[in-house]
Amino acid sequence: MSIAASIGDSHWALVEDEAELAEAIFARLAEETGDGVGITRECYSDREDAALGIFSEVALAHGCVIDTDPAGNLVVRLPGDDGTRPAHYIGSHADSVPQGGNYDGAAGIVAGLLCLIRIQRAGRDLTTPVRVLMLRGEESAFYGRANIGSRALFGLIDDKDLAARSRGKGRTLAEAMEATGIDTGPIREGAMLFDRDRAVSYLELHIEQGPVMVDRDLPAAVVSGIRGNLRHRRVVCRGEAGHSGTIPRWLRKDAVFAFAELIGRLDEHWRVLLERGLDLVVTTGIVGTDPDEHAISRIPGEVMFSFEVRSQSHDTLEGFYELFRSECRAVGQQRGVVFEFDDRVYTQPARMNANYIELLTASAAQSGLETQTLASGAGHDAAVFANAGIPSGMVFVRNSNGSHNPHEAMEIADLIAGTEILHRAVTSSN
Amino acid sequence: MSIAASIGDSHWALVEDEAELAEAIFARLAEETGDGVGITRECYSDREDAALGIFSEVALAHGCVIDTDPAGNLVVRLPGDDGTRPAHYIGSHADSVPQGGNYDGAAGIVAGLLCLIRIQRAGRDLTTPVRVLMLRGEESAFYGRANIGSRALFGLIDDKDLAARSRGKGRTLAEAMEATGIDTGPIREGAMLFDRDRAVSYLELHIEQGPVMVDRDLPAAVVSGIRGNLRHRRVVCRGEAGHSGTIPRWLRKDAVFAFAELIGRLDEHWRVLLERGLDLVVTTGIVGTDPDEHAISRIPGEVMFSFEVRSQSHDTLEGFYELFRSECRAVGQQRGVVFEFDDRVYTQPARMNANYIELLTASAAQSGLETQTLASGAGHDAAVFANAGIPSGMVFVRNSNGSHNPHEAMEIADLIAGTEILHRAVTSSN
Repeated sequence: MSIAASIGDSHWALVEDEAELAEAIFARLAEETGDGVGITRECYSDREDAALGIFSEVALAHGCVIDTDPAGNLVVRLPGDDGTRPAHYIGSHADSVPQGGNYDGAAGIVAGLLCLIRIQRAGRDLTTPVRVLMLRGEESAFYGRANIGSRALFGLIDDKDLAARSRGKGRTLAEAMEATGIDTGPIREGAMLFDRDRAVSYLELHIEQGPVMVDRDLPAAVVSGIRGNLRHRRVVCRGEAGHSGTIPRWLRKDAVFAFAELIGRLDEHWRVLLERGLDLVVTTGIVGTDPDEHAISRIPGEVMFSFEVRSQSHDTLEGFYELFRSECRAVGQQRGVVFEFDDRVYTQPARMNANYIELLTASAAQSGLETQTLASGAGHDAAVFANAGIPSGMVFVRNSNGSHNPHEAMEIADLIAGTEILHRAVTSSN
Repeated sequence: MSIAASIGDSHWALVEDEAELAEAIFARLAEETGDGVGITRECYSDREDAALGIFSEVALAHGCVIDTDPAGNLVVRLPGDDGTRPAHYIGSHADSVPQGGNYDGAAGIVAGLLCLIRIQRAGRDLTTPVRVLMLRGEESAFYGRANIGSRALFGLIDDKDLAARSRGKGRTLAEAMEATGIDTGPIREGAMLFDRDRAVSYLELHIEQGPVMVDRDLPAAVVSGIRGNLRHRRVVCRGEAGHSGTIPRWLRKDAVFAFAELIGRLDEHWRVLLERGLDLVVTTGIVGTDPDEHAISRIPGEVMFSFEVRSQSHDTLEGFYELFRSECRAVGQQRGVVFEFDDRVYTQPARMNANYIELLTASAAQSGLETQTLASGAGHDAAVFANAGIPSGMVFVRNSNGSHNPHEAMEIADLIAGTEILHRAVTSSN
């Protein structure tokens, strides 16, 4: 562990106002993890450590106690909580995508800390304690696998994940985790590293990453479920290179035209399936011909691309995946190309717990907030906890300009409103 | 000039058999300009010089005289020809693409030299002399501009061409030309450096770069015309990046889906126009999302691609280009993306001279060769001479596996057949 937190940084305790405290934390985060363009907090690196260090300073300054779990995540508890009783966990993640924004993940941790501080300041002694779980490695941007920190707790990280390299070429995930002080032995063996009996619930606040809440003028919303996804990091469409001017159209095996036809067909299926009411997203975020071979007047013999389907329904994911493979075969036969696929990566969709949806909705009403339930298009650690059988709930906070970019824009007032909902939910009948 | 030719290398003169001489020349070329994978004779470099040096050795050993023209190309004449009378020029190019084959360009120079040697050995004194024009810089692979050596003769090289860097990052074309001993001043000024009155015709033998002649079992063919092309080195389709899971389909500005739709539309137009009998080729050899930004779960905000149309018809080129731009606008409006275009590069199509098509066809028949006329899909220096008003003709020689790759495979017997056609054409009524 290289988290640089010291109890001496007690200036955090002097900030009375919650909004002011939140502002100050985000300012420090931007200062220490800014990359010139946006925010970069690579998981299991000194940048994620820096963010965790700032959060830890705040927690320690308010008298909290911090434990490190076997996956390197940090658990914050109040001094009156010895850490053994079943508790409400309020969690989110400290990492970010490269050139991302300051609020994706961090907002949820700040909300959790504000809840703890509020409970501490009120001097309340809760039957069910509240703990803040500061997770690592939620974003898939560096190692191609999302929710590393939470999945590792439930034995869901395998050898392939551990062998993946940062951005495809840096150190391996195992090396990065070990450099952070984590013993990867039990993780590699798929050991259960989280005691489910200690978790009454897992609750997470997160910025909305889409435009819906801004559009509907909702400061906060309760999440109904979280989409899963199916991915290939790398599919290669292989045709045959040749001089563009000299090979007639009917003899061409043009990888780029084949790729374009495939995407056209998938786009049309997507459109039709949406009209039928299915929940579905199809994305090809990465595309490229081979720089060592390609030329303006050369028929492209090869193009690589990534492939992703998202849905709240497992059946829709698998159904669309079948369609994808069958369209690859059809385009292949028609255009004389072949498609080669790397390993398929699956992330299960998750439903939020009905009781917690109700509790969070009621808490919002009691706080005088209009709210609605929304599905989450993006994945979250809450899906891992929900699928591990822990009653889970999520609160979204309004945010402009989407996420995973430097232009994320959350109002602190909205964060405080979301925090209010969480605080009420974990303290109401407690 | 650093051409290393010496009259002392007279062993070339001892080879009586034309096929044997040709084999020996190609063997020396492969030895001196092989790159380990294929053949690399970068224009205006020591590799192109090496090839010209070998050709010059052969010419000098047979008593020929060699002049250098103001663009650094070499002109070979027989001793009885003082270089001032109107002549038939037999030309082709000494350079190659990187990792290319041994015959693209070189075959035409060898054929020209064999014609001269045959005329010399026969002791013929022709009314219209025959000269061999050994051109530089035909391939666009290094400086993005084709036919540099021939275009420079007609004032068709501009400042942008001269400022282009080898493979985008090496020395400039001007620097490379100057290092070869060329005075780039007149070239930059667009001066006319070739005396059109001295050229009765420009004839060129070249390997076929497509599969047609192998398919039709033709050792040689007469070229009817040469395709021109219209290119953009770089078009950018710009949409809006965002988290794939959180932005609904109708709000997406997905650059890759837009690109795929554009290509799908152009492919359909292409198919229909071919059915209507138009000569047309459409290629997007280079495609790529931005490695600094792209991710599997990120809606691609940008994709760049190259664009090329080829046709024998100027009107088809311009017509399809208009269609391309209008489809860009249509896709842009529909999908909320914009397309940005770099400079358009135009290479004019060319018709071969009808009299020379007839003469070459008759010469083939007299040589007992079955032949057909074919259009050239790729560009050639003959197009530059034809468009400069010089009666031009071309002979294709059968070749397997296409060109611009190490697997070019021309039979020497086919080259000799093609040479026979050329020789007969320039000597028949002379």
